[in-house]
Amino acid sequence: MIKIGVVDTTFSRVDMGGFAVDELKRTGTGFKVERRTVPGVKDLPVAAKKLIEEQGCDLVIALGMPGREEIDKVCAHEASTGLIQVQLMTNRHIVEVFVHEDEAKDAKELAWLAEKRAREHAINAYDLLFRPGRLVKNAGKGLRQGFEDVGSIG
Amino acid sequence: MIKIGVVDTTFSRVDMGGFAVDELKRTGTGFKVERRTVPGVKDLPVAAKKLIEEQGCDLVIALGMPGREEIDKVCAHEASTGLIQVQLMTNRHIVEVFVHEDEAKDAKELAWLAEKRAREHAINAYDLLFRPGRLVKNAGKGLRQGFEDVGSIG
Amino acid sequence: MIKIGVVDTTFSRVDMGGFAVDELKRTGTGFKVERRTVPGVKDLPVAAKKLIEEQGCDLVIALGMPGREEIDKVCAHEASTGLIQVQLMTNRHIVEVFVHEDEAKDAKELAWLAEKRAREHAINAYDLLFRPGRLVKNAGKGLRQGFEDVGSIG
Amino acid sequence: MIKIGVVDTTFSRVDMGGFAVDELKRTGTGFKVERRTVPGVKDLPVAAKKLIEEQGCDLVIALGMPGREEIDKVCAHEASTGLIQVQLMTNRHIVEVFVHEDEAKDAKELAWLAEKRAREHAINAYDLLFRPGRLVKNAGKGLRQGFEDVGSIG
Amino acid sequence: MIKIGVVDTTFSRVDMGGFAVDELKRTGTGFKVERRTVPGVKDLPVAAKKLIEEQGCDLVIALGMPGREEIDKVCAHEASTGLIQVQLMTNRHIVEVFVHEDEAKDAKELAWLAEKRAREHAINAYDLLFRPGRLVKNAGKGLRQGFEDVGSIG
Repeated sequence: MIKIGVVDTTFSRVDMGGFAVDELKRTGTGFKVERRTVPGVKDLPVAAKKLIEEQGCDLVIALGMPGREEIDKVCAHEASTGLIQVQLMTNRHIVEVFVHEDEAKDAKELAWLAEKRAREHAINAYDLLFRPGRLVKNAGKGLRQGFEDVGSIG
Repeated sequence: MIKIGVVDTTFSRVDMGGFAVDELKRTGTGFKVERRTVPGVKDLPVAAKKLIEEQGCDLVIALGMPGREEIDKVCAHEASTGLIQVQLMTNRHIVEVFVHEDEAKDAKELAWLAEKRAREHAINAYDLLFRPGRLVKNAGKGLRQGFEDVGSIG
Repeated sequence: MIKIGVVDTTFSRVDMGGFAVDELKRTGTGFKVERRTVPGVKDLPVAAKKLIEEQGCDLVIALGMPGREEIDKVCAHEASTGLIQVQLMTNRHIVEVFVHEDEAKDAKELAWLAEKRAREHAINAYDLLFRPGRLVKNAGKGLRQGFEDVGSIG
Repeated sequence: MIKIGVVDTTFSRVDMGGFAVDELKRTGTGFKVERRTVPGVKDLPVAAKKLIEEQGCDLVIALGMPGREEIDKVCAHEASTGLIQVQLMTNRHIVEVFVHEDEAKDAKELAWLAEKRAREHAINAYDLLFRPGRLVKNAGKGLRQGFEDVGSIG
Repeated sequence: MIKIGVVDTTFSRVDMGGFAVDELKRTGTGFKVERRTVPGVKDLPVAAKKLIEEQGCDLVIALGMPGREEIDKVCAHEASTGLIQVQLMTNRHIVEVFVHEDEAKDAKELAWLAEKRAREHAINAYDLLFRPGRLVKNAGKGLRQGFEDVGSIG
């Protein structure tokens, strides 16, 4: 059976992993979920790799909420670079779901954004595994996760 | 038979992969195309690697349209770094076709640019596989993809 | 028996490794500690890798205090990138504990911060090895190491 | 027989590869040259790796002319990072010869600079292969390729 | 017998490798030195890797003097990233000794700084190989190489 890893952080101010797991379950069946939590986004890459190599996950959703300072941007960049490396070492997709604290105007919008992006990327993860043709059909459609889609100009 | 992978994104506002496939077919024969679409540019590296290693592609064209924000520039940089790594892990060329939203003055020019660059890079991909001598003949010619060539000053 | 590596620097102005070792011992038992010190943060990655591969450490805590200049920020970024690479090469967590000199308003606060962050991350290291469920319970809680937690907005 | 790879780009406004080949031939004998051209600097790393691993080159000279925009600087950085990676994967030197368009005050100086730097680095490549002692003798001499040497202050 | 590699550049304005070798010999015995020189800092990583893998060096000291321009900072960053990668590929320490031209107020101070830092890092290299306990004793002491130590605040 297909196994999906979900890993998030204690640094985040929203239980993003919880929303991802919930949305996966609403979207379809035929998979099991393996959940982990690490301190911060820089701990995500190795946690994702362990989910793939030690727990047999076929895909991982990695969620985090980088802060608003310059140093947080650097941490997010390091984490993203690591997550890409893991994908290349394992030939497995990792769907990165990062919400930067300064993307939202206040705590309420931030909580809304984190939940919405986590849910929409959970569907992307599901599509990568079970419905790749649905993604091809949406090529160039200007889709966004969280805020509104910008749409196609083709 | 030679196999060319084409992978683009749902984030892009133009079906760049479609234009690349069309141009490949106008340019020559002797190859098959394998098409994939992923959510965003950071998903391109592993998708390209899977096209090479799991689908046997000899070359991949990876297309995306990074946004105009600072965070989009960082994502594009991470994606490009990953695409170079894939090339080094597989000894296969990946022709990266990125069009940044802020390269064009409006949506109409952006759509034009995305199509033109996708088409011209599809020809580069074809040349890398079938006509390497044509590239050597153009060494130092100041060629550009999309906007006008700047030409040689030699 | 579980082995935890602790590596810090002579560049740091606080004996951060000493505090990490002390806190580990207050937190639990069932592990041995292997201690190393290197000149600066850029020496940490290979030292951590040697602790894992040559000394058999199951996890490493890597501590450093980057300076306040632009060049120090670059060094910290290079070190962090290296520490993530080591984790991916070994499938072992490395808990990075960096305190930037300009995070604190004076030497007194800096000393306090370096000790507090080293201690709190030592507990994170312990949890990753012995109490992973405790981390999952804290997913999205807005935890910080050093300064006060910012809390959940979920 | 020693084999030297030379790879440049169609993006460059000067046939830098041609100058490198010419200078190699003026400098010595005992080697063969293998020439390639790719679209842009980001295509250089894999081309260099293929020259080493598929064509048996002992050293590669990789030449390019990044543009004056911020995005061009990022591309050059990505290419350089890739060229270093190739060296570490193959234990072969790659002599990178990049001339940034904004290094020169006009097209005439740019053409002069590109030729001069290509020629002087071709000699460095020759020395790395055939005269390493000549480099040691010049340690700390403040040598530059293209513009004038700045000299030693020792 | 222990073998220490020393590699520097013709770009540097000071014979930093010479000072490192001299200081190593003043500090102790029981090792041999293998010396190399390359054009610039970006050539250091592969040279260091070759010293380790082809010449059997147990540790390498890599010395360079990046210039004062933005492009020089980028080159130094690329070189440093490569030097860390080599360490992770070989499990050997590389002591990086970079002196940026703009760290000193004039040529005289720059020459002084380059010699002093080269000498002090040569001792660090010696300690990593022969006296690791001496480094642990200095953990958190705020040591610097070149300019004055800043000291401990613990």
